[in-house]
Amino acid sequence: MSLLPPQIIRTIEEFSKLPGVGPKSAERLTFHLLRSSKASPEGLGKALSELKMELKYCKQCQMVTLQETCSICDETSRDHSTILVVENPLDVIAFEKAGHKGVYHVLHGVLSPVDGMGPEQLKLQELMDRCEQEEVKEIIVATNPDVEGEATASYIQQQLEKSVPKITRLAHGLPMGADIEFADQGTLKEALVGRRDL
Amino acid sequence: MSLLPPQIIRTIEEFSKLPGVGPKSAERLTFHLLRSSKASPEGLGKALSELKMELKYCKQCQMVTLQETCSICDETSRDHSTILVVENPLDVIAFEKAGHKGVYHVLHGVLSPVDGMGPEQLKLQELMDRCEQEEVKEIIVATNPDVEGEATASYIQQQLEKSVPKITRLAHGLPMGADIEFADQGTLKEALVGRRDL
Repeated sequence: MSLLPPQIIRTIEEFSKLPGVGPKSAERLTFHLLRSSKASPEGLGKALSELKMELKYCKQCQMVTLQETCSICDETSRDHSTILVVENPLDVIAFEKAGHKGVYHVLHGVLSPVDGMGPEQLKLQELMDRCEQEEVKEIIVATNPDVEGEATASYIQQQLEKSVPKITRLAHGLPMGADIEFADQGTLKEALVGRRDL
Repeated sequence: MSLLPPQIIRTIEEFSKLPGVGPKSAERLTFHLLRSSKASPEGLGKALSELKMELKYCKQCQMVTLQETCSICDETSRDHSTILVVENPLDVIAFEKAGHKGVYHVLHGVLSPVDGMGPEQLKLQELMDRCEQEEVKEIIVATNPDVEGEATASYIQQQLEKSVPKITRLAHGLPMGADIEFADQGTLKEALVGRRDL
């Protein structure tokens, strides 16, 4: 690779550190940026250099924001006694689009010992502090329905069952528009267990 | 998306411009960079900002370099009368590893009208100038064996057949270690046509 100028090698190396980007994709991305008229290395470079500038985490819900508290926590019309606990900021956007009217708490990850993610790496202490300081009626745990998400949900339940009257988790079952024929066993099982009166 | 700070939205937009990166992957990459200990937005940002700095194209072979001419063209021990024509700089690296001892010419793309790549967008004029100015005995066309690569090879052949005594292209056939059972029809056909005496 010494035939390539050092800045190209460095860019390939930096791209390779991203999840899902192998050495070959990193090379492809780098040379695409050198040649493309649409994407430019300066544009992405500038955006990345400024990415963390003035970026704060809402001191209440830990959402990314530019202020001390985020626009969602600032809305007094919301139900501040119901906290929807999510893994990351994009989940907040998804629930906002779905019309949730309560507030959130962003964990910024899930418990995953193999990735070095323990309770200290997540914003769990902040959630417990919130439940002590505020009058929280319900915690809705909305971690992803996978192994890490379930483990995180159990951990939150254990930690908060004494201080919060109601801890719920999202319903599991068939997604809207799904085809039963192609649904996996786990989903069908959950859909049966969680069946409701018509 | 207005719930997210502008620099995050900008980074997601810039990532989305890259080939193979959709809006969801762009979001994932952006938030990964915010959280990861291994990859950092500053590292990649700096590398990208410096990517084009002092970067030149070798005035002979068009390889990326920091000098007027690249280290390959500078090597007097090489066979300068045989030019291997490739699509991009990474192909040069691949042929160097394979032990090619001639020189190269990098087209920086292939003919592809749908992508707006015509002869003017490629370093084809530079190749023709080279063939006129230097004593070139052989042009080996090493574009990829796909539709665009083959079209580019034909175009080069038409343009240069009067000025270069020998124009060849890479052999097509079974790759080393391949399993005939799983080889595609096109490859087997080429392997039969190009068969050699044992």
